[in-house]
Amino acid sequence: MKTDTERISRIQSAMEKEGLDCLICRLPENVVFMSGYWPLTGRAFLLFPRQGTPMCILPSIHEKEAAAELWQGEIVSIPFGRITSGDFFDQVRRSMKNVLAQWKPKKIGYEGSFETMAPPWNAAEPAIPAAPTRELLADVAAGASLIDATPLLYRLRATKTPMELARLRVVNEISAIGLQAFAQAVRAGETGIGLASMVEQVIMNQGTGYAGAKRVRAFAQVSTGETETIDGYRLMLISTQREMLPGDLAMLELAVVADGFWCDRTRVCVAGTPTAKQSAAFEAVMRAQAAAVKAIRPGVTAESIDAAARAVIREAGFEDGFFHSTGHGLGFRYHEPIPIIEPGVTTLLETGMVITIEPGIYLPDVGGLRMEDDFAVTETGAEYLGPAESKLAQ
Amino acid sequence: MKTDTERISRIQSAMEKEGLDCLICRLPENVVFMSGYWPLTGRAFLLFPRQGTPMCILPSIHEKEAAAELWQGEIVSIPFGRITSGDFFDQVRRSMKNVLAQWKPKKIGYEGSFETMAPPWNAAEPAIPAAPTRELLADVAAGASLIDATPLLYRLRATKTPMELARLRVVNEISAIGLQAFAQAVRAGETGIGLASMVEQVIMNQGTGYAGAKRVRAFAQVSTGETETIDGYRLMLISTQREMLPGDLAMLELAVVADGFWCDRTRVCVAGTPTAKQSAAFEAVMRAQAAAVKAIRPGVTAESIDAAARAVIREAGFEDGFFHSTGHGLGFRYHEPIPIIEPGVTTLLETGMVITIEPGIYLPDVGGLRMEDDFAVTETGAEYLGPAESKLAQ
Repeated sequence: MKTDTERISRIQSAMEKEGLDCLICRLPENVVFMSGYWPLTGRAFLLFPRQGTPMCILPSIHEKEAAAELWQGEIVSIPFGRITSGDFFDQVRRSMKNVLAQWKPKKIGYEGSFETMAPPWNAAEPAIPAAPTRELLADVAAGASLIDATPLLYRLRATKTPMELARLRVVNEISAIGLQAFAQAVRAGETGIGLASMVEQVIMNQGTGYAGAKRVRAFAQVSTGETETIDGYRLMLISTQREMLPGDLAMLELAVVADGFWCDRTRVCVAGTPTAKQSAAFEAVMRAQAAAVKAIRPGVTAESIDAAARAVIREAGFEDGFFHSTGHGLGFRYHEPIPIIEPGVTTLLETGMVITIEPGIYLPDVGGLRMEDDFAVTETGAEYLGPAESKLAQ
Repeated sequence: MKTDTERISRIQSAMEKEGLDCLICRLPENVVFMSGYWPLTGRAFLLFPRQGTPMCILPSIHEKEAAAELWQGEIVSIPFGRITSGDFFDQVRRSMKNVLAQWKPKKIGYEGSFETMAPPWNAAEPAIPAAPTRELLADVAAGASLIDATPLLYRLRATKTPMELARLRVVNEISAIGLQAFAQAVRAGETGIGLASMVEQVIMNQGTGYAGAKRVRAFAQVSTGETETIDGYRLMLISTQREMLPGDLAMLELAVVADGFWCDRTRVCVAGTPTAKQSAAFEAVMRAQAAAVKAIRPGVTAESIDAAARAVIREAGFEDGFFHSTGHGLGFRYHEPIPIIEPGVTTLLETGMVITIEPGIYLPDVGGLRMEDDFAVTETGAEYLGPAESKLAQ
């Protein structure tokens, strides 16, 4: 795989500044960020020195994928998955000690405070760092200081390189397959779970192989009707078997990952003809998104983008219905903490940041409507990482 | 929801024995195990006292589901998801301090060493415990000892109550919808990713609502042809766009979750007519599974079950092709560590344990074939948590 030299040099410069000699990571989102390899479970350890060649210690059953994806560095393959394999952690420990005995780092950074994670492709059972991993790190550090590098990693992840932006365009294009299938399928009689599972299926099936994507997965939630969509601002709403009635809204909240790069989109459609209030709210949300996007450029505050969206909703008379953030960072995860686009956040936008813009309105007699897309901050404004049309009714 | 009093009393007895006054958990798999409530992200904290009523501190946006599912206990709802919500962790901290100031525990157990996790229904972004959670626990413990209760939790989870067995029957029944759809769909021209995404879709769509199941999700991997299926012993194999040829095998590895209860199944089918070698390997795998199941009863060692399966494979001449475990525990996760069914493991089977039996053969000129189902240890033998037929060819 083509090496992202820009990414490597940015990480090395930051390590230089912080006096870190080495980073050790195993969350798939940090391994892919630093090495190009998106691990299959979370048991691959990446040792990334400030100078020189990284080392990836991983279960033998994943060696093939790592060899194909890693930009650079050596692979240490630990037997795994056979009854003769022996203790995985013990062997990781020995390998790490060997590497660090040569590197002799004084300060080692690790991912100590990640309280949310992006799952690997097969999300059924993510491996996560807990006490055994911390004991392992303390043991192999052998006197070096262990520094929680979580803030550094989040900061570095916030601003994407040109190669990372190219990957985010691909996953957004893949997501559009699902958005389009959703818009075409919404009608009376459909269910939220039926629509959600269909969207996941078409994205996984048609997205795999798109522009070379090898591992694609979608996570969709669809709320329908007034009661459910008014609740649609809630993270992780449950899709149900409720059958849509004529005039019902259906709102799709969609995360898609392609080889470790994530996008986050929302669409809302009506089964049949929208009411005047639904149309007015939809128009307000669309105009709020456009106003926020127009305000995006390097050097402005996150809260100014939020204010641009919120002003439109207020002027349209729907202010009480918009009580969540206007957006957030993303890329190596469905949600990233830098920047958050909401009142009071004075983080300055920088070229290469990628954010969602997702104004929404949730009101009785209207229902819930949100429009969400992903945008990159460019030198002169914003790039829509689309594409997908947005119409309330077909 | 009906309270599993048997589960509560088993946990309380174990806490009594270990001198634990209180357990604090937040991994969804432990919260559902101890309280009946399957959290939606991983941000719900369950405080479970040895005597008295548990307390569940959670994000306000998930209060409705918790109220519907929790067997007992009070809910403390922390504002979440609105721009006015304030800092979630700070408010959790205050609530926990209030509760613990009343309970005055001396020894608090927590889930310190879980290095794998079961994701919540929307698996796009699990919340996980890291340094902030550990600091929170140390702070609220206020002088009480913090004990890593991971071994205790795994031990308690290994042996299911009658109510838990009923839930595992349901998820196994739901998985059969996908197994059947898979068997009917395998033919030349199909792809692994097409079959996998279809199986996930039908299970999610038809399984939601089955026997009252509210949150159902499937994670499927399908390998096809000799090269891919020979690799099919590997955890987390990637499904591809390779088109099946006549005579190719397709192997489905399937995890399904229904409201926090997991099953783990494997099926293999051929596109068209199997070769004599494929048929012989399939027959050997089927007979190996039957022999292992016949050996299951309380009081026998895990390795004796493994030996029963392995003997059949050896006698059939396929010994070199069977190099992984015969099975493992499961229930609150796709894989649980108690018991592992492989040589050298002298763990005794107990009534109520739930295990997979999954012999497999992976050889050149044959391909990879595995058959996997879930079984409960009963007082007199084994209960097949099926149902599903298994045929190599339709």
